[in-house]
Amino acid sequence: MLRQLMQTSDPASQPFVISGSGTLGWDFVAANLAERGDDALVLHTGYFADSFADCFQTYGVNATQLKAPIGDRPQLPEVEAALKEKQYKLITVTHVDTSTGVLSEVKSLSELVHRVSPETLIVVDGVCSVGSEDIQFDNWGVDVVLTASQKAIGCPAGLCIMMYSGRAIESFKNRKSSPASYFASIKNWLPIMQNYEAKKASYFATPSPQLIHALHTSLTQILARPLTERFAIHRETSQRIKSTISSYGLKQLAAKPENQANGMTAIYLPDGMKAPEILPKLLKKGVIFAGGLHKEIAAKYVRFGHMGVSVVDPSRKDVEKALNALKEGLGEAGYQVQS
Amino acid sequence: MLRQLMQTSDPASQPFVISGSGTLGWDFVAANLAERGDDALVLHTGYFADSFADCFQTYGVNATQLKAPIGDRPQLPEVEAALKEKQYKLITVTHVDTSTGVLSEVKSLSELVHRVSPETLIVVDGVCSVGSEDIQFDNWGVDVVLTASQKAIGCPAGLCIMMYSGRAIESFKNRKSSPASYFASIKNWLPIMQNYEAKKASYFATPSPQLIHALHTSLTQILARPLTERFAIHRETSQRIKSTISSYGLKQLAAKPENQANGMTAIYLPDGMKAPEILPKLLKKGVIFAGGLHKEIAAKYVRFGHMGVSVVDPSRKDVEKALNALKEGLGEAGYQVQS
Repeated sequence: MLRQLMQTSDPASQPFVISGSGTLGWDFVAANLAERGDDALVLHTGYFADSFADCFQTYGVNATQLKAPIGDRPQLPEVEAALKEKQYKLITVTHVDTSTGVLSEVKSLSELVHRVSPETLIVVDGVCSVGSEDIQFDNWGVDVVLTASQKAIGCPAGLCIMMYSGRAIESFKNRKSSPASYFASIKNWLPIMQNYEAKKASYFATPSPQLIHALHTSLTQILARPLTERFAIHRETSQRIKSTISSYGLKQLAAKPENQANGMTAIYLPDGMKAPEILPKLLKKGVIFAGGLHKEIAAKYVRFGHMGVSVVDPSRKDVEKALNALKEGLGEAGYQVQS
Repeated sequence: MLRQLMQTSDPASQPFVISGSGTLGWDFVAANLAERGDDALVLHTGYFADSFADCFQTYGVNATQLKAPIGDRPQLPEVEAALKEKQYKLITVTHVDTSTGVLSEVKSLSELVHRVSPETLIVVDGVCSVGSEDIQFDNWGVDVVLTASQKAIGCPAGLCIMMYSGRAIESFKNRKSSPASYFASIKNWLPIMQNYEAKKASYFATPSPQLIHALHTSLTQILARPLTERFAIHRETSQRIKSTISSYGLKQLAAKPENQANGMTAIYLPDGMKAPEILPKLLKKGVIFAGGLHKEIAAKYVRFGHMGVSVVDPSRKDVEKALNALKEGLGEAGYQVQS
């Protein structure tokens, strides 16, 4: 079912489901698809690129970050120029950076990489996108999508979920040194995942049956309706939210419409208002917004997640409740929404 | 509460609870407490020492295994001789090896290490022992106990649980190179764990609230009664099981009484009978025994877990049910128990 969610029918594509979190997925990439001294190009759209780069450095992989101003993403011509400068073993992109709400253009990026630097593996950090954004693993030609259970998949946290292309697995098999991690080792997990799919018992480390059962339930629910419908409703809901936020006189971190994620919105608070002044007010109304994560401006903005069941099941009215709470909360904190 | 379970009141002791499994705990030890080129002495009582040694090698740490025949453990004089040969950065011991049911003598081992090689850190793999065997972290002077949520703690699988001594944390802080793993990095997790205990929000990777809530419930239940009582009932139940098994004419892998774990029993099947001939019969009776794990003799034995709620709550009658099912199952597979 993960194959369906990622839209891959290539039998060489290999899913992995491991106890851990999305962060563990970075270790898998850095310790298995790159070797000490290799170069990785990390596209920066917020907090998570800095951390992914740290992860590469831990394993002796040189991470070059291509940065963009807060709320923006590196542009394709810059990526092209960078790819021509050096032979990168892999390029990573945060599909949706949950610290800024910036959406990356994975499809055209992947086309660019295949054209300019066809040996480079394309790694998509989909922690905040799988389940709320369209990902066409085969059609777009990406090599890794890594994610976690708790976001748009809508399952309890505790699972690291990944899809590797046949090309990525080949690249792993051709590495000269052994994997740089033990728990996050494709060598240790690949036979286990293959045995699981073949319904054979196999042991490397204890999995979490409860979480895997929950994942099965979530995926069954998601796949009961066409994915195109799921992504469309996320897009429509997101647009409604973004235009309402804008009608409140508030700005988003991701200023350009083409940069805006469909499963979340990062919203600048009115001038002078800080996140701790409003978040507890929203909590009292039964609505949880998240604080800022981007170090430079953390207190100046809040984050609104609108993905999964809150969006797909309109009878819950979660989105309307959150928008109204935000309006009231702003008022209580001294900012009157014009309307 | 973890501090209570491990019997440590030293404020320098540092607990860690991370999404993952017991295996991840090995990565934590190998990537944080040792550096490339260091030596580790791995006491071998079954399958798990081989894997822990592999884990050390992954991080460039030289693992020397001290082996014992199947069902036995390395003896203290051998350990003493090994410790005198070389300066080991750490020594590891599997408290209960779930592949053989062998119990290690952690207390006297720790005394020996402190006497002979006081700089060596003492690492206890307690995956199959925490919650069913007495562990006196402070009194015995151990440096790390690592475990997982799903065994005698009785919580769903998916958490790696560890306790580090102040000495282990100091040793980590004094290392020359940076940690060799990103996800399994004490540098990344230590501030998070300290902030959690101080009730401050903090982020490195997403934890699993459901599993942590389940852990809280399990620990509350365990600590509602004195630990001494808990360990005594595990010991008594284990002795009753072992003498019944013996009255069936069956032998244990752990032949010597002082080597026998109190939370599980690894049982040799009658000559010529293989595990796949009996396990499905037991399953039909609603009882799950596990197959063998020790590569050399896997089909020749089965494993019986008797830990946690099955033992502590006698009204469940789990143990009697399992013993009766085993007797009947042996009969159906062609071995008549004399009685």
